[in-house]
Amino acid sequence: MHHLRAWQAIPGVQIVALANRTRSRAEALAREFAVDDSRVYEDYRLLLTQERLDFVDIATAPQIHREQVLAAAEHGVHVLCQKPVATSLDMAREMIQACEVAKVRFVVNENWRWRRWYRELKARLDAGEIGTPRYARFSMHNDGVLPVAGGASPELLTRQAYTAQMPKLIVYEWGIHLVDVMRYLFGDVERVYARMSRISPLVHGEDMALVVLEFRSAVTGVIDISWGSYIPNEKRLVRGNLDPFIVEGDQGTLELDPYQDDSVILTTADHTERWSAHLAQSPAEEYQESYTQTHRHFIQCLRSGEPAENEARDNLQTFAVTLAAYASAEQRRVIAVEELYRDC
Amino acid sequence: MHHLRAWQAIPGVQIVALANRTRSRAEALAREFAVDDSRVYEDYRLLLTQERLDFVDIATAPQIHREQVLAAAEHGVHVLCQKPVATSLDMAREMIQACEVAKVRFVVNENWRWRRWYRELKARLDAGEIGTPRYARFSMHNDGVLPVAGGASPELLTRQAYTAQMPKLIVYEWGIHLVDVMRYLFGDVERVYARMSRISPLVHGEDMALVVLEFRSAVTGVIDISWGSYIPNEKRLVRGNLDPFIVEGDQGTLELDPYQDDSVILTTADHTERWSAHLAQSPAEEYQESYTQTHRHFIQCLRSGEPAENEARDNLQTFAVTLAAYASAEQRRVIAVEELYRDC
Repeated sequence: MHHLRAWQAIPGVQIVALANRTRSRAEALAREFAVDDSRVYEDYRLLLTQERLDFVDIATAPQIHREQVLAAAEHGVHVLCQKPVATSLDMAREMIQACEVAKVRFVVNENWRWRRWYRELKARLDAGEIGTPRYARFSMHNDGVLPVAGGASPELLTRQAYTAQMPKLIVYEWGIHLVDVMRYLFGDVERVYARMSRISPLVHGEDMALVVLEFRSAVTGVIDISWGSYIPNEKRLVRGNLDPFIVEGDQGTLELDPYQDDSVILTTADHTERWSAHLAQSPAEEYQESYTQTHRHFIQCLRSGEPAENEARDNLQTFAVTLAAYASAEQRRVIAVEELYRDC
Repeated sequence: MHHLRAWQAIPGVQIVALANRTRSRAEALAREFAVDDSRVYEDYRLLLTQERLDFVDIATAPQIHREQVLAAAEHGVHVLCQKPVATSLDMAREMIQACEVAKVRFVVNENWRWRRWYRELKARLDAGEIGTPRYARFSMHNDGVLPVAGGASPELLTRQAYTAQMPKLIVYEWGIHLVDVMRYLFGDVERVYARMSRISPLVHGEDMALVVLEFRSAVTGVIDISWGSYIPNEKRLVRGNLDPFIVEGDQGTLELDPYQDDSVILTTADHTERWSAHLAQSPAEEYQESYTQTHRHFIQCLRSGEPAENEARDNLQTFAVTLAAYASAEQRRVIAVEELYRDC
């Protein structure tokens, strides 16, 4: 839905066809987004054969991205593909190569770095307002996948049922956004340390992870996330118990406070300043806008031929860092990201 | 002062003599604590020679603990010694051995594990109220050693001037309390990962540290502390920007909230419960009480002959974990605590 609404908002883009294995689902979307019924498909291959497209937007589960991206490349159609792009680095590389050979663009739909407050933060960092950054922390612990009283399915597992079966869960599915945001803010990650565990009996993968990113720029980035933590009701209601995102430098601190009108708070040696990052948008509007910005960037890059920020070849590093976290947790040691490149 | 007040509060204990290199300081304390002027010393060796003592309480800087502990042992006097006991593991071992040979008790004055809320937490954990613990986080970032506007010395460096010169700072001087608290709650630490940095030009040692403790019990313990972070004024005023201490288990979460009357908050699958941990004490009274409890335990153990919780031989593990954090930050890898024992 976020995707389709974003396409609707961009001048010159037309949603011409839809595919979904569940026809009724595709038909409902077709009605909502004014797509002719004759252009609704159960089989995406048929869609690729019968339609003349400029690009496809692949918004499916990670394990079927490969076949869909390769099929799009075969048909000479540009690709915007949901994160994570693949289930292994080798697979991601194969997809990138296929698109390069077919001369189609391959861009990853990674919307978080386009969220307004991270753009704001990046501008302030680039302006040197806190000097040289050295520490950043994103932290959120909630009960997203814990059993719900009465036996109902937790909301996340209802909305994206496939997540229950994922062997890699919270970092692969969600933490990857935060890895990408931190790469956007602080550059290349050199080494990764992680600890993971699972509490919920409803999922296969880890529901808690502490990931520490050692950046080449010497920033320490902490991603401390959980969907398997018991929290008081009132914390659950407020943005899922999201803690303020903090970036500390040698001359000041920037903080994003999600509880005070999405304030950005800048503190230096001699003053503290606050302003709202979202310009009177609601949280839902803000989140939708991050997709619209991501898609707009994709269209601009298709038109200009310029590389996208989230070109698959660049996003491969976000993916490698994510996989390095799993390697670290499993091997109980710090993993140099380049080890993963070497091993492939 | 905390020490002397604690001794005063324990029946059967009498403060008979005081030594301080600055005589006026010792004299002022002597007046306040009713010690005869003739029993005030500049030289602690003279005190040991001239007085008949049951024990000494060594509350000096770490680098002079060794000579003072060895001198007390020579005189056959039991020792309660301020943490950290030494500047290296070898030195700590030498001191332990000297006390064992001299048949005097050697106990470390580590008061944090006697703070009322950690005792409360331990009781709840032992009662199984959150099942098996798996994650704990202590976090506090403030500007404790950053330059103060107008050029005044920051409060910490005024109160304990020697800290400015310490080559190891926030973990060695303060984080060690949190390591000990976590050992008290979760048992033996197997491995340690840490990142450290320094911002303040007023100190030599690190003023920021992220330390991750991997417990044998599979708990991940996070100690995320800084004295070199710019924070808004209003956060500085509230307990130095201390975050709630969180312990998560497979059946619930315990949280100590320092901003709501020192509440303990217990959340399980079906309910949330709150109560105050400090029984109407002020924060200052609570902190003083932690010393009184530490000292009372020491006296009880002297009388009974039972080992103390904070016997130097046991506290050596807290010290080893602390040094492992420095080794990890320096060598950029996870350090097994036993490596430090092997290397000595």
